[in-house]
Formats: sequence, structure tokens, C-alpha cells
Amino acid sequence: MTGKLVIIGTGPGNPGQTTPQVLDAIGDGELFFGYGPYLDRLSLRPDQGRIASDNREEIDRARAALDAAAKGASVCVVSGGDPGVFAMAAAVCEAIETGPETWRRLDVTVLPGVTAMLAVAARAGAPLGHDFCAMSLSDNLKPWELIERRLRAVAEAGFVIALYNPVSRARPWQLATAFKILRESLPVSTPVIFGRAVGRPDERFTVAPLGEADQQSADMATCVIIGTAETRIIDRPGMDPLVYSPRSANP
Amino acid sequence: MTGKLVIIGTGPGNPGQTTPQVLDAIGDGELFFGYGPYLDRLSLRPDQGRIASDNREEIDRARAALDAAAKGASVCVVSGGDPGVFAMAAAVCEAIETGPETWRRLDVTVLPGVTAMLAVAARAGAPLGHDFCAMSLSDNLKPWELIERRLRAVAEAGFVIALYNPVSRARPWQLATAFKILRESLPVSTPVIFGRAVGRPDERFTVAPLGEADQQSADMATCVIIGTAETRIIDRPGMDPLVYSPRSANP
Repeated sequence: MTGKLVIIGTGPGNPGQTTPQVLDAIGDGELFFGYGPYLDRLSLRPDQGRIASDNREEIDRARAALDAAAKGASVCVVSGGDPGVFAMAAAVCEAIETGPETWRRLDVTVLPGVTAMLAVAARAGAPLGHDFCAMSLSDNLKPWELIERRLRAVAEAGFVIALYNPVSRARPWQLATAFKILRESLPVSTPVIFGRAVGRPDERFTVAPLGEADQQSADMATCVIIGTAETRIIDRPGMDPLVYSPRSANP
Repeated sequence: MTGKLVIIGTGPGNPGQTTPQVLDAIGDGELFFGYGPYLDRLSLRPDQGRIASDNREEIDRARAALDAAAKGASVCVVSGGDPGVFAMAAAVCEAIETGPETWRRLDVTVLPGVTAMLAVAARAGAPLGHDFCAMSLSDNLKPWELIERRLRAVAEAGFVIALYNPVSRARPWQLATAFKILRESLPVSTPVIFGRAVGRPDERFTVAPLGEADQQSADMATCVIIGTAETRIIDRPGMDPLVYSPRSANP
């Protein structure tokens, strides 16, 4: 058993946000598994192999990667952002737990990265400046009723909310419904940030009050951050406003 | 107004986890403001200035940095981890909002970093594999009753919980109380991860069931991750177990 498997996060897409540790792992890898657009960012050498798959095939991809590592390859499983946040690290762990005993003997390493909400927050100012949560709005792997319950719980408890996977072709109404639920407990003036491809040439970044937040501002690659009643907007002459959540909070 | 201010996050401490973008900003900076131990990690040149302050003086540090930038300096405000997660970005925004009008005209940039919970999670496996939240356990800036309410809300709603600032000399009992509260709604077998200085020579990393989790396992630089009833531990021969939260969830 000489193979090994490294699960990497390349960050939000700006090459300046990929850590040196991850760049080293990319240099050392022999066989790369991931969603095609993430693999496209890597500039692999001709001697490095790539096996691209659709982003809905995470568990099959994890199994194929583990199988290759068990056969002796030096395997790299590639996520955008951080591999532990709605990405491949959990899928690989699930595959190990339910797979052959030999997979438990593999050298498995997870290398963290800058996850989307941190890059979107940095672009905005400091909207995650106090307690916050991260939720996937996809109901592919959990029931929608649970998502609604979680949205209500965290909004009422005063957490900033970062939403991943806000919309997709197969999930067209979920984000609008989430905004409707959040309007029940948050002021209509609450800032909502839509950030996509932040730091890349195709960046899309907008801020809207919750009362006017439009699900059309998001696509599947957008991270949506919803503030709390305490989140502030600082207008600045000739520049984007700063959006931030104060470090202090009232009961 | 030629000065500028960049707020950087150097990551959890392993030099391989500081992004190239942040390394460039460090190279370009003239004057560095931050908590002493974070500045010590930077290897500044003799022509670069450093102004260290205690980690309880964030707002004064922010004002001093803005003042220096307004006078024309190229200023770098340094956080460990990510500057937007319980760190300097929100303090700088607060100082701008309450400070002189000229501070709103400054060129202010926030550069994200790998925050502690991502590094601790990567070390463990994938404990943040589904919906999660990040909370500061410090009651310096918010009432303890609010912290208790938030802990109950997120534990009952099934979020993984990452705790920052779990203990300090001035806050000796808060973490033990948090564990007590969490035991009311989570099984005693729920995995609790204590990670400190992950990826550095002085790393401390332990996993314990919630029923036996001991506040002595944490200090002020520890990030504590508490799983959910669904979080799993995969034992592996001769290696640390993998701790992960499955991507799917039940109602």
C-alpha cells in the first residue's frame, strides 16, 4: 500500500489565494480527480493525469480516487474553496467508511483553503464580523423542511448567514423562499451580499437590502451572505460601501 | 490622500498556509499593526515598521492604523487566520464608521486567509462537512445569556459548532458551561475536536466525546469543534481516526 490521497482546496479562484502548501501538492500529484472547471484551473503537466466528473457525482468520484490511491497512485482530489466546506473531504470520508478495509490504511491528507464566504466577506468589508453560520441551500441531501427550520433558528438567534449552493437549474425556487422566511425575523433593511467569482475577471458582486433581494442575483457559483439586524453599511465617496457586522451584540 | 490600508490574514500559522496575495501585501507594506505574536511571524525587513499591541486593544489599534494611513503610509493590519472572522476587519470598519470623514476616503482592502476552524477541520477529516456555525465564546463584547441562547439554538437545529476564543485567564468557566449546555441536546458520544497551532511544531490536537470533553484541553488559541449527533469517527490502524459529518442529514 504505497499510494496516497491528498484532498486540496484551491481557494475561490484568484490564483493569489491558493496556498503554497496546495501548490506543492499539485506539483507532486500524479492523478487528479475533480469537477472539470476546477481541474481546468490547475495548469497540469503532460505527465499528470486528470479525471473530470460532474459536480453531482461526488461519492463516485471519491471512490474512484480511493481506488486509484489503493493501487499505488499519488492522487489529488480537487475542490474549489476549502475541501471541508460543502466539498470533497466529507465525500471521501463517507467513501472510506463504507468502502473496503484497505482504504482505511491509505495515507489521506486534507489541505485547507480559503472558502468562498471568506473571499466574499473580504470583498464586502467584514460582514462575518461576529457569530455566523454556513448552510447549503441544496435539498439534494437533506429535506427542505430541515433547511427552513435551520434558517429560522439562526436568523432568530442573530447569526450572520452564508448560503452555499443557493440555486441551480434543478432548484429554482429555494433562494426566493429562503429570503421570504428570513424576512419574517429580520428587518427588510438587512444587507444581503451576492458574491460570485470574487477576485477573478468575471467577478459579480452586489449588495441589496433583504426587502429587495432578488434570487436572480445568484447562480450556482454565488455565495450569498445575509447580515443581521446589526449589520451596518458605511457609504464611501467614489468607492463601494463597506458592509460589516459589529463585534459586539445586544441580547 | 495617498495612504492605503490592507487588512491581511496570515492563516493558522503554518507558513505553507499563507496565500501568495498576502505574502505580496507583506512585501509591499511600510507599517505593520497587530498583536505581537502575529507580527513576529512576518520576517519584516529593517525598512518596515512594526507597532505591536495587546490582543484586547483592537479598536485602538484600528484607529492608530487608519491615522497612519491617512497621513500617507502604506499600512498593513495583521490578523492570524482570516481577518474577517473574530479579527481585525470588523474593528477597522467600526473605527471608520465612528471616525473622521477622511477615513472613508482611504483605499481599504481586506485579504482573506485560512481561518482556524478550516485548518483544524482539515487535520481531523471533514467535521464541517455539512451546515455549521462559528461562534466566539468571549463575553467581552456580548452578554453571556446571548451566547447560551445561541448555543442552544444551533445545537438543537443540528449545526456543527466551531468555537473561537474558548477560554482565557479572565474567562475560566465559559467553555465548561458551554459543554454542559450542549450535553442537554447532543448525545454524550458527539465528537469534540480541540485544535491548537495545527500544522505548526507546537501543534496540540485531541478528540474526545462530548460526555468527557474537558475544558482543560483548550487555551485561548484553541479552536474547538463540536459535531452533531450525525458526526462519525472512522478508526484507522496506526493512524489518527478521521472525524467527519456526513453531507446528508435527516429531519
